[in-house]
Amino acid sequence: MSVQGYQRKLDLENGRVDLSHGAGGRAMAQLISSLFHRAFGNEWLARCNDQSAFDVATGKMVMTTDGYVVSPLFFPGGNIGSLAVHGTINDVVMSGARPLYLSASFIIEEGFQLSDLKTIADSMGEAARGAGVYIIAGDTKVVERGKADGLFISTTGIGALAHGFDLSADKAMVGDRVLVSGSLGDHGVAIMSKRHNVAFQTEIVSDSAALHDLVAVMIAAGGAGIRVMRDPTRGGLAATLNEIAHQSGLGFRLQEAAIPVKAAVAATCELFGLDPIHVANEGKLVAIVAPHLADAVLAAMKAHPLGRDAADIGETVADDHKFVQMATSFGGGRIVDWLSGEQLPRIC
Amino acid sequence: MSVQGYQRKLDLENGRVDLSHGAGGRAMAQLISSLFHRAFGNEWLARCNDQSAFDVATGKMVMTTDGYVVSPLFFPGGNIGSLAVHGTINDVVMSGARPLYLSASFIIEEGFQLSDLKTIADSMGEAARGAGVYIIAGDTKVVERGKADGLFISTTGIGALAHGFDLSADKAMVGDRVLVSGSLGDHGVAIMSKRHNVAFQTEIVSDSAALHDLVAVMIAAGGAGIRVMRDPTRGGLAATLNEIAHQSGLGFRLQEAAIPVKAAVAATCELFGLDPIHVANEGKLVAIVAPHLADAVLAAMKAHPLGRDAADIGETVADDHKFVQMATSFGGGRIVDWLSGEQLPRIC
Repeated sequence: MSVQGYQRKLDLENGRVDLSHGAGGRAMAQLISSLFHRAFGNEWLARCNDQSAFDVATGKMVMTTDGYVVSPLFFPGGNIGSLAVHGTINDVVMSGARPLYLSASFIIEEGFQLSDLKTIADSMGEAARGAGVYIIAGDTKVVERGKADGLFISTTGIGALAHGFDLSADKAMVGDRVLVSGSLGDHGVAIMSKRHNVAFQTEIVSDSAALHDLVAVMIAAGGAGIRVMRDPTRGGLAATLNEIAHQSGLGFRLQEAAIPVKAAVAATCELFGLDPIHVANEGKLVAIVAPHLADAVLAAMKAHPLGRDAADIGETVADDHKFVQMATSFGGGRIVDWLSGEQLPRIC
Repeated sequence: MSVQGYQRKLDLENGRVDLSHGAGGRAMAQLISSLFHRAFGNEWLARCNDQSAFDVATGKMVMTTDGYVVSPLFFPGGNIGSLAVHGTINDVVMSGARPLYLSASFIIEEGFQLSDLKTIADSMGEAARGAGVYIIAGDTKVVERGKADGLFISTTGIGALAHGFDLSADKAMVGDRVLVSGSLGDHGVAIMSKRHNVAFQTEIVSDSAALHDLVAVMIAAGGAGIRVMRDPTRGGLAATLNEIAHQSGLGFRLQEAAIPVKAAVAATCELFGLDPIHVANEGKLVAIVAPHLADAVLAAMKAHPLGRDAADIGETVADDHKFVQMATSFGGGRIVDWLSGEQLPRIC
């Protein structure tokens, strides 16, 4: 929409969001055109319709959605915007699909700094372009001061599945290997450190990243030998494996010593009484892979920048109890349960 | 996911949402399975993956998203759940597409009544089933007490366009007729009345409804003669026509006397100093239709329960200023501007 006819320029340096920016009138049109459309810039949004049309070819598509309420909004390694784009791309990608389009719904608290909103929108645009994905639909609502916590974003993603490819947790089989793409707990510990203002010699940075390209090399190496992929976000590796156990009716046997955790992350977790396998990741994946292809897939992961620290951490086993068991570094064993809640609220 | 293994049954009568319900663990899985999956019940959600796959045929699809922050959450004629489903279906439908799938992202304030959440989820399931649409992806986040206002929902919709059909505001042409599907302002006035606890002899009820079927009969009657459709939500008819004017580079000339407004809505608007053409609707549409097909489309609308009070309210005109002009009932004329903000915040 042309900016012509707006009363005055949006003050992106010192201005704040007010209720008029969510009200469907001139102020909202101005915010959308001068901030969001500029950040996301693509032909679909430029048409200014309430929906965007795109071409599809016969086959299978996937759809996924996620709300983001992370606190604080800015953290080492990203912000709520890049996180929302990465996270939703990853949920598309875990099915084996190629991510194509995103939508983004913004719920903004009155008084929110326009400069922060611009930084966040710019991060979203950059994250989307980096993954070859377009944000083709959006919505902006503003609620009164005190009725939200700065900014919430809900992103929805759609992608196209290659013919015959359709991963699902119930496809895991006994004897499959369990691969993780890198060190666990980075995102959760980065958020917590920022929240509690903990200073480290080496800053712990969120692993927030889009995994489309890593998954592409894994599929090239493992094909249909890759039975399940999932990104261990909220609840960490423990929740993810317990979910897969429930869906597949199998158990897991893990080797604690094989699970990659950065020294600084491990130390911080110990300090705060957390267990890295319960802590959220935003740029990691777990793959359940047929045993004869596991080494090839692992090698492909290690050759990719986002899989350098990938590891084979255990296997699926027949278990009516669907337990996730772990052989500890001290030679013992324990059941890895999923927590009722989470150690860290509003981690994503 | 099987409920087996959850500590105790979710207390849907007296229970409340707590932070654990958004934390990715056992409590969240329980909330999702016993409340959302039951309300939305379909084969996709039953698979419990982080994304859902569906078949598509070669052609064009559309995507749209909307956040819902309406206050109060329950109002005459619906609640935030039915509104979120109807509203997103309507945005799909306005392109001429058939709505297929929805996703829903819930951001819930700690302490929210589970019984209310169940009512809302049930309304969403019912609204979706009523339109032959499936909610195939969802997400639940919980924020601390005081960090949200009860419940926000963001819904995203996708639909399939019939071959060669792709409505867009820039397709309006000089001399097209402007049709509205019924009385204006019902939703906004219903919300406001509830908010201010205004009692009327006849309760004013939101018009919240899914317009897929009305649009189907319109397309059958008017085909490609329907150039633009849009639902006049936030900002009302005035904002919608001003948007179309900007996108098409045309002006509008309306007849005030022809615009349908219920007597009770008109009276309430007068009482509160509102103008019904600026007030939000949630079950109405505006169609810009080629003049030779306008009567046929209008007749088809009037024969449909959701278009009984449809009316031809004016025409598009050549106008470099892209003004929306209205001949008033008193014989004068005025420019219908869009407001900077909105008369009623958080109307949807």
